[in-house]
Amino acid sequence: MSTASANETTAQDHAALAVRLGRAAREAALQLATLPTDRKNAALARLAELIEQSGEALAEANARDLAAGEANGLSSALLDRLRLTPERIRQMSEGVRQIISLPDPVGEEIERTERPNGLLIRRVRVPIGVIAVIFESRPNVTIDCAALCLKAGNASILRGGKEAFHSNTALAALVTRALRETGLPENAVQLVPTTDRAVLNELLKLDELIHCIIPRGGEGLIRFVAENSRIPVLKHYKGVCTLYLDPAADPAMATAVVVNAKTQRPSVCNAIENLLVHRDAAEALLPRVATALRDKGVELRCDEAAAAILARHDIPTTPATEADWSTEYLDLILAIKVVDSLDDAVAFVNTYGSGHSDGIITADAAAAERFLNGVDSAAAFWNASTRFNDGFEFGFGAEIGISTDKLHARGPVGLRELCTYKFIVQGNGQIRG
Amino acid sequence: MSTASANETTAQDHAALAVRLGRAAREAALQLATLPTDRKNAALARLAELIEQSGEALAEANARDLAAGEANGLSSALLDRLRLTPERIRQMSEGVRQIISLPDPVGEEIERTERPNGLLIRRVRVPIGVIAVIFESRPNVTIDCAALCLKAGNASILRGGKEAFHSNTALAALVTRALRETGLPENAVQLVPTTDRAVLNELLKLDELIHCIIPRGGEGLIRFVAENSRIPVLKHYKGVCTLYLDPAADPAMATAVVVNAKTQRPSVCNAIENLLVHRDAAEALLPRVATALRDKGVELRCDEAAAAILARHDIPTTPATEADWSTEYLDLILAIKVVDSLDDAVAFVNTYGSGHSDGIITADAAAAERFLNGVDSAAAFWNASTRFNDGFEFGFGAEIGISTDKLHARGPVGLRELCTYKFIVQGNGQIRG
Repeated sequence: MSTASANETTAQDHAALAVRLGRAAREAALQLATLPTDRKNAALARLAELIEQSGEALAEANARDLAAGEANGLSSALLDRLRLTPERIRQMSEGVRQIISLPDPVGEEIERTERPNGLLIRRVRVPIGVIAVIFESRPNVTIDCAALCLKAGNASILRGGKEAFHSNTALAALVTRALRETGLPENAVQLVPTTDRAVLNELLKLDELIHCIIPRGGEGLIRFVAENSRIPVLKHYKGVCTLYLDPAADPAMATAVVVNAKTQRPSVCNAIENLLVHRDAAEALLPRVATALRDKGVELRCDEAAAAILARHDIPTTPATEADWSTEYLDLILAIKVVDSLDDAVAFVNTYGSGHSDGIITADAAAAERFLNGVDSAAAFWNASTRFNDGFEFGFGAEIGISTDKLHARGPVGLRELCTYKFIVQGNGQIRG
Repeated sequence: MSTASANETTAQDHAALAVRLGRAAREAALQLATLPTDRKNAALARLAELIEQSGEALAEANARDLAAGEANGLSSALLDRLRLTPERIRQMSEGVRQIISLPDPVGEEIERTERPNGLLIRRVRVPIGVIAVIFESRPNVTIDCAALCLKAGNASILRGGKEAFHSNTALAALVTRALRETGLPENAVQLVPTTDRAVLNELLKLDELIHCIIPRGGEGLIRFVAENSRIPVLKHYKGVCTLYLDPAADPAMATAVVVNAKTQRPSVCNAIENLLVHRDAAEALLPRVATALRDKGVELRCDEAAAAILARHDIPTTPATEADWSTEYLDLILAIKVVDSLDDAVAFVNTYGSGHSDGIITADAAAAERFLNGVDSAAAFWNASTRFNDGFEFGFGAEIGISTDKLHARGPVGLRELCTYKFIVQGNGQIRG
């Protein structure tokens, strides 16, 4: 066989595999859509049990991934993400049990209108259908996403990273077994049996079979998916989040919130990367806030005005450049800028931010309202840490991710956001005149 | 200049024009987002006046399009769509006045939660931002879309068809004038100043500046947009809609609803193309329904079972092929099939339908519920004509189109569906532990 025709066969195989996965998922989705809550919960309960009982098998599969990872020179941070400890295995089954306890979003009536002609029009929450989740190295995502999609009545196609392939395969086998043993369609959750990017590419074309793509991972993966997908994507690229200190900010509150938003967990998307201070308050607020940040080991990248104030207090800074304002450090670094007005703060957020989580600290309600309405952010905070932009903190019970998109879901994506709606119209023979 | 570099310059010009439009729209959108309702309504009121006062100028611009259309051999149907009569001009201004009378969706609180830690979390409706509408020959779409997007606080980029270019340009000039005279940003509504598809292609790449694309027109245009866009698209390709007659259907109601759904306006997307009849009811229902359809001049494309029944009543039919079940005739043709069960009817709709509008006629509430839940359709009807899937009929007051997508908006897209939401979180210094 020539190389050309071998490649062609492979390309056909990739496309055929993707279509097979898509069709099987669509068929399962139609069955899941009308399943009562207790049937879905029974499958999830069996899954939680199976995870608890399978510690040894999961550890073995994980050991193969870890050995391969070490051989391939993965960083210790990546190896840590990959590792399934007994505690992490327990957390997975605990997560599934939490999802069981959440209310089923399917069938909820969102809106009801009776029209003058007697038609009763109801907007009812229903599953989206087929959701593909594309993720990287953490194997627990397999269970999280499978369980969340299933509870919301969706079939899922899961495509994990190659580093976690054996771990994901072992976890997916438990899901399949739980589905089979509780009489649910086995194709309700499918792990893509290869991490070949060519198959992913074929999946991204199947807009008639797959209704939504959720990429979870680094910005590179997310951009690849967004740029190559014909299917709608729910995503956020990054979190360049900003807090703005108004002249009416309480200094103690400003200090506590800024330190929390920057340092409580610097590596996540809702941590702040920028701090703005109104010129009239900079002298009073900045030294105190900066001292507290320095105590936590934060590098301060300052514009000239902020640097001048802090220099007078012998607080070390480094100069900020234009690029700093839109950089997601995910680290103990904070860019600081003095602004002339609230409007300038809003304009800064809308220019350099990523529309994720931005906040104002002030005792002035009118100033707060202008800021909260003005920033084009998924979540806008008044006198609270941006770290609260999270499905658990918002009371959703769980989340599959956070969206900075405008359509469908913005902010945390929980069970309700994994649903769409349909109109159910009841009449007694109405015809249109 | 060589051809290659001329092309290159042109390509750069196309991209630069698209980016200029996108940036101007984004800037206008940020201003529109916080405008009070009366400011938006004042601009719309001025637009309605200007349309009423500009009949002559609009007729002149339209005459240029009509003359060009005739010279280019446009069909009489297309020329009719293109024509701006005094009545159609009056309807445009009337449509704008109706939009003024609708409630402003922006700022509506969708949901409010107080968390145990005291955080008040509100989900609030806000504009999407920048919406691009791509449409074909009917110039009134320029005004409809400009007004709907503006009322919902969105900036719009309108790209009409080349056949209506002069008419659209004249209408867009009125919009710009209304915006300027009432102090709104002029770039709140921009008509793309060329119908060159290369510019459209560049617009479809601007996912950081344009938040939503709405294509309105034939399936070819919509597929082109969907396949080439990196921006989320709200759309429906076509309406392959089905009515199913259950054994418990009232014959008079079945006849009236089927005839209405097929013949009241056969050229629209919510008219039916398929009729299914349960085997147990076919003998009793089909001849009566078929006779009423024949009286309206409908061609009946039947499967063997339906054809055999109608042949015994001397009702002429033509044989249906597999392709008929998924064909959107938009004409006085109806495909008819006898099914063995309600489940078969649901499976037929989910296999051949386009997820638009499907219904059941039955007096049996349990059967209705199974059908309504089982069909994966934007709108499911029980004892009513599918022709009611429409923003006006649903009480939305207006619509920009109908979506068969799963994400964001499904069914009629009205003012609320032209919005997204943001979370506004109010605290008193909460930090995350």
